[in-house]
Amino acid sequence: MRAATSLALEAATNSEVCCQPLAQDALGQSDAERLAQTLKALADPARLRLLSIVATSADQEACVCDLTDPVGLSQPTVSHHLKVLTEAGFLSRSKRGTWAYYRLQPGALNEVASLLAIHAQA
Amino acid sequence: MRAATSLALEAATNSEVCCQPLAQDALGQSDAERLAQTLKALADPARLRLLSIVATSADQEACVCDLTDPVGLSQPTVSHHLKVLTEAGFLSRSKRGTWAYYRLQPGALNEVASLLAIHAQA
Repeated sequence: MRAATSLALEAATNSEVCCQPLAQDALGQSDAERLAQTLKALADPARLRLLSIVATSADQEACVCDLTDPVGLSQPTVSHHLKVLTEAGFLSRSKRGTWAYYRLQPGALNEVASLLAIHAQA
Repeated sequence: MRAATSLALEAATNSEVCCQPLAQDALGQSDAERLAQTLKALADPARLRLLSIVATSADQEACVCDLTDPVGLSQPTVSHHLKVLTEAGFLSRSKRGTWAYYRLQPGALNEVASLLAIHAQA
């Protein structure tokens, strides 16, 4: 068992995933459906890798032209995954010249993290 | 856009989901697969509701006999969902008398939360 560590997490959001923290009150059906849908967008190895590459790129932004090689998937497959992540609010897309660029929306990931986090009971 | 709020999150864990934070280094394939599998266990409305009920119960523990009615599903379906959550490390199960009791393993949820959280760039 590791020692407890404290993590200070910026929960500034410009996109609201939904609902309330998991451990605040019993989650209602519609909140649960929205959170499940958001988690489904994340629950794929290729999408997690793409999100991670964007998150670790300069300015947390990457050209789609630099995203296919690292994950070893075809451009249409990568574009599909990027669309799912964009629709779920984790990325934003902008077109500059020939290429589309994807930028991380850190607020959406932090919102999910804060909904899942369990605080120690007194 | 909401004001930034700071969330202090206990990341004490006695169960290791896996890997490294999403925004630390580009995630490798095996780490991405493990995290995706863990997120899939969460990405279901019934499982989120069950987890939330357990998390908000006294001592973060609930009898299976008290879990079927609130989610409106059959006992076998609820048992299946509880098994998925237990195998993913989010719940632990103990049998006392006739009934099985499920207890929240907060470390597993906090581990996922801390892997997803994005820290503000300098």
